[in-house]
Amino acid sequence: MRIEEDCIGKMAVKDDALYGIHTVRAVHNFPVTKERMNPLLIHNLVQIKKAAAEVNFKAGTLTADKKQAIVTACNQLLLGQHADSFIVPAIQGGAGTSANMNVNEVVANLAHRLNPAVAVHPNDDVNQSQSTNDTFPSAGKMALRQQLPGLLAAIGQLVQTLLVKSKRYQDAIKVGRTQLEDAVPTTYGRTFHAYYQLFKRDLARVQTAGNHLRVVNLGGTAIGTGINATRYYQTHIIDVLNHNTHLALKLAPDLVDATQNCDLFVEFSGAMKTLATDLSKFSNDLRLLASGPQAGLGEINLPAKQAGSSIMPGKVNPVIPEVVNQVAFEVIGNDVTVTMASEAGQLELNAFEPIMLRALLESERHLQQALHTLVKNGVRDLTVNRQRCAAQVEHSTITATVLSPYLGYEKTTALIKEALATHQSVPTLLRARHLLTEEAINQLFSPAGLTHPRNNKLILADQA
Amino acid sequence: MRIEEDCIGKMAVKDDALYGIHTVRAVHNFPVTKERMNPLLIHNLVQIKKAAAEVNFKAGTLTADKKQAIVTACNQLLLGQHADSFIVPAIQGGAGTSANMNVNEVVANLAHRLNPAVAVHPNDDVNQSQSTNDTFPSAGKMALRQQLPGLLAAIGQLVQTLLVKSKRYQDAIKVGRTQLEDAVPTTYGRTFHAYYQLFKRDLARVQTAGNHLRVVNLGGTAIGTGINATRYYQTHIIDVLNHNTHLALKLAPDLVDATQNCDLFVEFSGAMKTLATDLSKFSNDLRLLASGPQAGLGEINLPAKQAGSSIMPGKVNPVIPEVVNQVAFEVIGNDVTVTMASEAGQLELNAFEPIMLRALLESERHLQQALHTLVKNGVRDLTVNRQRCAAQVEHSTITATVLSPYLGYEKTTALIKEALATHQSVPTLLRARHLLTEEAINQLFSPAGLTHPRNNKLILADQA
Amino acid sequence: MRIEEDCIGKMAVKDDALYGIHTVRAVHNFPVTKERMNPLLIHNLVQIKKAAAEVNFKAGTLTADKKQAIVTACNQLLLGQHADSFIVPAIQGGAGTSANMNVNEVVANLAHRLNPAVAVHPNDDVNQSQSTNDTFPSAGKMALRQQLPGLLAAIGQLVQTLLVKSKRYQDAIKVGRTQLEDAVPTTYGRTFHAYYQLFKRDLARVQTAGNHLRVVNLGGTAIGTGINATRYYQTHIIDVLNHNTHLALKLAPDLVDATQNCDLFVEFSGAMKTLATDLSKFSNDLRLLASGPQAGLGEINLPAKQAGSSIMPGKVNPVIPEVVNQVAFEVIGNDVTVTMASEAGQLELNAFEPIMLRALLESERHLQQALHTLVKNGVRDLTVNRQRCAAQVEHSTITATVLSPYLGYEKTTALIKEALATHQSVPTLLRARHLLTEEAINQLFSPAGLTHPRNNKLILADQA
Amino acid sequence: MRIEEDCIGKMAVKDDALYGIHTVRAVHNFPVTKERMNPLLIHNLVQIKKAAAEVNFKAGTLTADKKQAIVTACNQLLLGQHADSFIVPAIQGGAGTSANMNVNEVVANLAHRLNPAVAVHPNDDVNQSQSTNDTFPSAGKMALRQQLPGLLAAIGQLVQTLLVKSKRYQDAIKVGRTQLEDAVPTTYGRTFHAYYQLFKRDLARVQTAGNHLRVVNLGGTAIGTGINATRYYQTHIIDVLNHNTHLALKLAPDLVDATQNCDLFVEFSGAMKTLATDLSKFSNDLRLLASGPQAGLGEINLPAKQAGSSIMPGKVNPVIPEVVNQVAFEVIGNDVTVTMASEAGQLELNAFEPIMLRALLESERHLQQALHTLVKNGVRDLTVNRQRCAAQVEHSTITATVLSPYLGYEKTTALIKEALATHQSVPTLLRARHLLTEEAINQLFSPAGLTHPRNNKLILADQA
Repeated sequence: MRIEEDCIGKMAVKDDALYGIHTVRAVHNFPVTKERMNPLLIHNLVQIKKAAAEVNFKAGTLTADKKQAIVTACNQLLLGQHADSFIVPAIQGGAGTSANMNVNEVVANLAHRLNPAVAVHPNDDVNQSQSTNDTFPSAGKMALRQQLPGLLAAIGQLVQTLLVKSKRYQDAIKVGRTQLEDAVPTTYGRTFHAYYQLFKRDLARVQTAGNHLRVVNLGGTAIGTGINATRYYQTHIIDVLNHNTHLALKLAPDLVDATQNCDLFVEFSGAMKTLATDLSKFSNDLRLLASGPQAGLGEINLPAKQAGSSIMPGKVNPVIPEVVNQVAFEVIGNDVTVTMASEAGQLELNAFEPIMLRALLESERHLQQALHTLVKNGVRDLTVNRQRCAAQVEHSTITATVLSPYLGYEKTTALIKEALATHQSVPTLLRARHLLTEEAINQLFSPAGLTHPRNNKLILADQA
Repeated sequence: MRIEEDCIGKMAVKDDALYGIHTVRAVHNFPVTKERMNPLLIHNLVQIKKAAAEVNFKAGTLTADKKQAIVTACNQLLLGQHADSFIVPAIQGGAGTSANMNVNEVVANLAHRLNPAVAVHPNDDVNQSQSTNDTFPSAGKMALRQQLPGLLAAIGQLVQTLLVKSKRYQDAIKVGRTQLEDAVPTTYGRTFHAYYQLFKRDLARVQTAGNHLRVVNLGGTAIGTGINATRYYQTHIIDVLNHNTHLALKLAPDLVDATQNCDLFVEFSGAMKTLATDLSKFSNDLRLLASGPQAGLGEINLPAKQAGSSIMPGKVNPVIPEVVNQVAFEVIGNDVTVTMASEAGQLELNAFEPIMLRALLESERHLQQALHTLVKNGVRDLTVNRQRCAAQVEHSTITATVLSPYLGYEKTTALIKEALATHQSVPTLLRARHLLTEEAINQLFSPAGLTHPRNNKLILADQA
Repeated sequence: MRIEEDCIGKMAVKDDALYGIHTVRAVHNFPVTKERMNPLLIHNLVQIKKAAAEVNFKAGTLTADKKQAIVTACNQLLLGQHADSFIVPAIQGGAGTSANMNVNEVVANLAHRLNPAVAVHPNDDVNQSQSTNDTFPSAGKMALRQQLPGLLAAIGQLVQTLLVKSKRYQDAIKVGRTQLEDAVPTTYGRTFHAYYQLFKRDLARVQTAGNHLRVVNLGGTAIGTGINATRYYQTHIIDVLNHNTHLALKLAPDLVDATQNCDLFVEFSGAMKTLATDLSKFSNDLRLLASGPQAGLGEINLPAKQAGSSIMPGKVNPVIPEVVNQVAFEVIGNDVTVTMASEAGQLELNAFEPIMLRALLESERHLQQALHTLVKNGVRDLTVNRQRCAAQVEHSTITATVLSPYLGYEKTTALIKEALATHQSVPTLLRARHLLTEEAINQLFSPAGLTHPRNNKLILADQA
Repeated sequence: MRIEEDCIGKMAVKDDALYGIHTVRAVHNFPVTKERMNPLLIHNLVQIKKAAAEVNFKAGTLTADKKQAIVTACNQLLLGQHADSFIVPAIQGGAGTSANMNVNEVVANLAHRLNPAVAVHPNDDVNQSQSTNDTFPSAGKMALRQQLPGLLAAIGQLVQTLLVKSKRYQDAIKVGRTQLEDAVPTTYGRTFHAYYQLFKRDLARVQTAGNHLRVVNLGGTAIGTGINATRYYQTHIIDVLNHNTHLALKLAPDLVDATQNCDLFVEFSGAMKTLATDLSKFSNDLRLLASGPQAGLGEINLPAKQAGSSIMPGKVNPVIPEVVNQVAFEVIGNDVTVTMASEAGQLELNAFEPIMLRALLESERHLQQALHTLVKNGVRDLTVNRQRCAAQVEHSTITATVLSPYLGYEKTTALIKEALATHQSVPTLLRARHLLTEEAINQLFSPAGLTHPRNNKLILADQA
């Protein structure tokens, strides 16, 4: 063990550890979870360290050999080496300082190990021109942006799959249901198209909110005033970082604002929550429409993905939408966590970014994966029981709604009551009473007549 | 009492009531609250009835005298007459059918009362080409849009007031605080500017989400297929309504989607929730900075608006930010209500729009009014205690952070510790040890030096 | 107008107003909502004023004539007179000070009006030995406790109704459903009994949490130290108040704790939230089981309470469970509001009790009323379609689960697959293959055999 | 690879894998997270398998050699062997079937591996008398109960530590603060005692709700009717399980209810949420009272646990309360997740138990650990700056509140205003004007006088 010292006192650190005293203290202080800081967050902190070294060198505030040592160390870490040196827990006090110092220490020690002639200081060199308060949220936004294309692609896949389904089942007539009660008919083409439109909006929403995460506060240092950074650093760090990462970051126009306010996180969480809400509604519908096989609605067939029961042989359950529901509940809960954490920020800093970023990165990743399995294992191969659906429309009395403009609401109500009571179809009753011409009946009760606006040239029998 | 009948049976209705049997049933069925349906919702349902009559007449499906009778009745109602005829409760089952029928019945009866020669039917005439499922959510969006300019103006007032404050206190130096602990200095100019930027983003967010509420599903009738509406109605109702209301509505491109999905409500609620979260953080900051008068931070003075205590004489409390906090908590709770209600929609309809609209209209209105009093009674006349703030900076040791780039993190830490222990200022120690030139000390510890990026041409004493 | 003055300055008050300057300031400061403070809260503040006057008189700190004047005024107010004098808004900053001062002012002015010879001061006399910080939360708890029996009775009614239903349908066999897919059978007797048990637990939970609200902090005054109250007051106020109100209040053992912590509100909100969650699940089940009438599950019939649609004649919807769902969503949202408001308390006081009490009183009242209509209009008269349910069991293949212990999971799976593919019943297949004795088949596939633990003495055909 | 087959089809499984086809399907179906099912849940499923084998053997439905093989395999697994065979993800569709089948398969294969002469079937033998729907929630409750003593002990430690602090600082007078503004004084003894009382209630709440989790539905099998279990199994499984685990489980009185309703989870989550809310308020107070060191309240000193900033030398932050805040936000978010998942249960089963149990186990564990570090690193060694606190009381004008009963509210207000304006102390003004006797002044402004109910025998100077 080697002995290190900080402003608190001395502490032993494992001889071969790349991390140092600040990291060890964090592990002792935050034993909440064994889960470590998200690797993407660490990865992007390293990206910032590397870019900062390059910029500080050009600014004339870091020597060439230190710069080279830091960059070499960062390059190794970016390849995933020494990943087990990042041991600070995912849930930590201190606004991310422990995560930032873990990275500073590992980079400094690795740089020195790789270039023993060069002494690199975690704060003065690796962290130069930086503060946890600008690097940590920036790395968080970078991580969220790295995961974003995956999420957008997964939503996009659902959107495209739904469009395909809407075309395939364009003319598959079915009973509509409002408030779970039989309503006027529609088609599965329209049903899938409605979901298609819904998730297209979600795609746009997540994209817009994700795009706002481009704006970072690098160069603001401790509280956004930029203390201890150089002007050169402030004006060049983003370019170098974009060059290295292709994340299209932008410098915030007001660094004090960007350091203390977390509204962009709440906004992004809100967009994901809206998506989750819609996914849950969609999954509920799928499960309901697929219910049965004998005593349910049985309109659609979800692909059978696994045996459904340890006790009931042959049972197959809608496990794919079910897992989507659960991810949705998680994401909606995470939104409350993010909201409360953002609300709790005080004055020049929000100290609760670690829990926000944990929740956001988890929501983003889980939504992507849930969408992925939903499309692949749930929606892509689902089929519609066309006959069953058409038969239900045929037997439905609520289709008599089309008569209302011609017979009036009250007379139509009476007809429906009679049809239900006498187990006759409404068209049969109409014919028996010569209330409408045969042509009018056929037109009104055709699939097109039942699922489109009325043709107001239709002539009633007694008016003919 | 007169006797009316519907598909359920007969029921007595007060002789002089403009409402009818459907309304009375609703009052019996939903005794949850005495609070009635929001008048703005009723107002916009009447607007729809009026526009529908005009369009149906032109479509040839409503006679001229019925049209005239309906329009005349609606005009009276739009002036606020007979407001006590709208008695259905704010919280109701049935996806808004009771509200819609209350309006249909009142319009029909009033039309007949005003033109006894004309018999107007609530369903066949007043509700012609419509369904609750397209009129109710459309009226809800119209109501939200009517309240929107007021909310946007109130946010805008806060934004402008913060900009004025940021200019007035541009050079008022103060201690920054991160994690509630003393940090490097900033100015009140920057503090107010950061809030200014924050609420500018909130303004844009609420505006964007509010703009999405333009899209309505009128003409979709029961489930979006447009059954019983005419094509003419579908293509003209929005124009007439926009002409009458100036609300710039747009017809949804997919009426089935627009009838069943409530994501636009969740999105708008999310934007208001983000604003609420930011307002709560801002209010927390105001209350903390104004704490005292003797044993608190005492940096700012909120205007005294009322005696603060029934028992402690002379106490004045930050009652204005406190009421804003409470509205924020309400809005955040309402967001959960809206989210759950939207998630609970099933198949072709979401039956829970009444509770969503109640929550949304309340959030929108309360936020506007909270912002209004926040600006008028809280922010506009607040003042900063410049001297006290400047003195705190002068006594702060954390300003020694500026030395770090020159002396290194560890030497600076030691200096700070010594300064605290010996009750000397850091500049005094620097001078005593000739660590920096007098010029460098003055430059570093000047207000500008403490609140801006470093000047990397600064020369250390021992390097000189 | 008369001119009044407080520590802020002078202000005009309507000549005939019973309220005074503090009240008027509140109306100006908190224009958030036109909704006034809940009358129950006001009522209980008046009860406290009355009891305090009685105790203060006995303690020797209030003269007999002032006591008499205050008591007389309070008695008038408790009868509901001058209710329009309580004009402070429901949402207010200041931890309830405005509500308390509104009451203090009205009592003082009314006392003086009734006894012109006696000058009664709102603070020194009416508010004597009190502070907003002990009277306001105490009045809030009293209001919640006054509403509590109504809520408990409403839950109790549901519990009893479910027990009756469970007996009536004890042997009504039906298909069970897990994950919305057909599962082994059960009976409606068991179904209703399960809900009965659920709501019995909810009854106990709400009762327990409601009972905890007995504990009040009267006599603690500003921060629980009891400053300016007498010992006599502290030890007698609860007794007098209990004598006047029969609310069985108890003095908190630690008044500082009871003044600053709102966990009892969060606990009570949590109990209501759990009830709401269960009511929503129950309502969802009712709506699903009643879906149809033709293209749904159609197992139960909810009483028809109103015409369901303005456009679809004859449609009847489950409007009663729907309104219960919506109240549930409201209560769950309110729970988040209460949680955040409680979390936001600082040091010796929680300033956000007004929004908590508004949310809690609303949740409590709305739940009671929702339960009331649920029992009266939804559950009491619902019926089960016994034949339809029994037929579904008969046609179900999943009943073959009972064979698993005898034939094994895999052989049973194969049998079920074959039955589904060949449209034969499983017993038919069993008989055709002589896999079980006729007696065994009859026993296993009897209603009792399908809905109870296995009889392990059953002998297989090939083992016989 | 070996080929296995189920009702869906064939699939390759790794040759040496103890798990089988159902497990592999789950891994493919639920790629949401790499996080595996909580080991405690797996552990308790194994406990159930072991106990079930013992009971089934005694019931005569499982042979002795199969029983022995299963028990031997379970014993190995309970020691933690083959832990890497439990690969199903933490978030999964199917109500826990995948977790249950993973265990069934591993036990069956391991039993066979250990006793090659015995063929053990995962469903017929290992899962005999069971269903996922009774084993999974029961294992979940067992896991929660195993973690419970740790959580209770951690709360208990906080309670005890606060009691010790309240005694140590019994007479340390300090300024009270209501609404963040200076209020009448109190002592740190009372402050800590108030927190002590608060967390004692939380301890009782969590204990009560945790105790309710004793009730399990084992023997209910698929939907609580007990199909395929024997009566013997139903009446003996709990005893054997309690003997093996000491978890004091109880059989639910209504197994159908216990299978479908998750209110006990919502209740337990609610108790943890209340604790979290209180912990967050407490942490907020600690951070505020410790703010500074120079420009904050600076009343207490939290132990320095780590360097607070990567950029500001010597800065020490309240990182321990900060991590507690974040866990609180997580737990409050998890409560929403649990609430929504419970609400979403349908008919005979709640399919969303996996996400509920994940959230609950995480909340329970994180709260325990957060409490642990809060006591050890935050509260145990905190100290109070007695002098600073006493000096603030001395300089405070709000202490003049004690004069109100003698001089009246208005005269006292005027005195305070004058004291603030003239920078004199209130006692000085009193003496100058001979408003009170020296003895009265001394008594009123003594620490005891300022922090206790009034002595109503006090005599005013001008009355003397």
